[in-house]
Amino acid sequence: MSETQMPSARTRVVREPHRAAYDRETVYRILDEGFLCHVGFVVDGQPFVIPTSYGRNGASLYIHGSAASRMLRQMQKKDALTKEAAPVCITVTLLDGLVLARSVFNHSMNYRSVVILGKATLVDDPEEKLAALRILSEHILPGRWDDSRQPNERELKQTSVLRVPIDEFSAKVRQGPAIDDEEDYSFPTWAGVVPLEMVAGKPIDDARLLPGKAAPDYARHYTRK
Amino acid sequence: MSETQMPSARTRVVREPHRAAYDRETVYRILDEGFLCHVGFVVDGQPFVIPTSYGRNGASLYIHGSAASRMLRQMQKKDALTKEAAPVCITVTLLDGLVLARSVFNHSMNYRSVVILGKATLVDDPEEKLAALRILSEHILPGRWDDSRQPNERELKQTSVLRVPIDEFSAKVRQGPAIDDEEDYSFPTWAGVVPLEMVAGKPIDDARLLPGKAAPDYARHYTRK
Repeated sequence: MSETQMPSARTRVVREPHRAAYDRETVYRILDEGFLCHVGFVVDGQPFVIPTSYGRNGASLYIHGSAASRMLRQMQKKDALTKEAAPVCITVTLLDGLVLARSVFNHSMNYRSVVILGKATLVDDPEEKLAALRILSEHILPGRWDDSRQPNERELKQTSVLRVPIDEFSAKVRQGPAIDDEEDYSFPTWAGVVPLEMVAGKPIDDARLLPGKAAPDYARHYTRK
Repeated sequence: MSETQMPSARTRVVREPHRAAYDRETVYRILDEGFLCHVGFVVDGQPFVIPTSYGRNGASLYIHGSAASRMLRQMQKKDALTKEAAPVCITVTLLDGLVLARSVFNHSMNYRSVVILGKATLVDDPEEKLAALRILSEHILPGRWDDSRQPNERELKQTSVLRVPIDEFSAKVRQGPAIDDEEDYSFPTWAGVVPLEMVAGKPIDDARLLPGKAAPDYARHYTRK
């Protein structure tokens, strides 16, 4: 589906279509600022939504976890007939603010979100797997991989990496001030936006640090912007 | 299911079971600190995961949106045979920090999350609907409801409110320092936690504020703690 024009019928934004975006630049910008996604998958008709981290390499999203993870195992389950993996949904949401309008009805939130529909593939090539783990690590905390003790064979075996193509997707973005009904602008209340942002605090040293090991810049000045 | 002991087979935490919690106090504390959830529902076998706000009243979760919303309409769809609404999953995740271990493998995140499985019911009693909208508003921004122009008949008609019982659920919580393999504590790198928190910035006045309307305390000192 990688050559298909977005949106598909399934990813077209129905409500507030003026907030929709279907271009990869917008989608990648959101994916690259976030690192926490919510993965949806179905077991016996019941949807499950589980938070996990992700990394991006071009038009591929990687997620990882224990090889024993229920979520990762479900995502790889092949349909008996089609031999295809189960469909999944990966959603990334960045919250930017509370929008306080004059009317209760026009209150809103500023946010940027991406919804990706697709099927996951287990990454079994050892080289791609190690590269994907590095991408996941560097996506969350650039610089950390090289400062860490590298994965060994046992750890790699205990870890599964899945690849989900970024082929069928949409973004939805709301930014800016409250939009009130014209007659409400005379209503005597404050209106405006309370900006929200995820910020990093001062790094907390581990109790068993080796002497002389100060927190590196990527921990002291962590930001997603 | 409200009298069933949690976890059910479907909400039992499989990975890292020591991080699981099944008591309402823990679950409610997480639900009350958050206000953004990710709703999972299934259309023709395809899961969708959509972010939205929520409010809580006792053992009920409320979500709302446009009566025309695809998500809200799908959540109310009755099975032709059972006449029951489609199963949904509502997940709330609070991110508390990045956990930097010595080994790549033991890196982690501090977080608190809740997963609720259930079926949504349309709130059609006008009194409960208005009360639910107030709960949603007060959950996100206590004090704002009374300062706003109240919903009128037309707006109420355009809004749907759904109730999801908090009956089948689990929480998963990871807090604290990195846990490295004993032999890695001599690896020469920094280790520790980078705390993450969602914080509110200075409120942004609307361009068409009435004179003398300063940002109220609930906007100037917004916090979820």
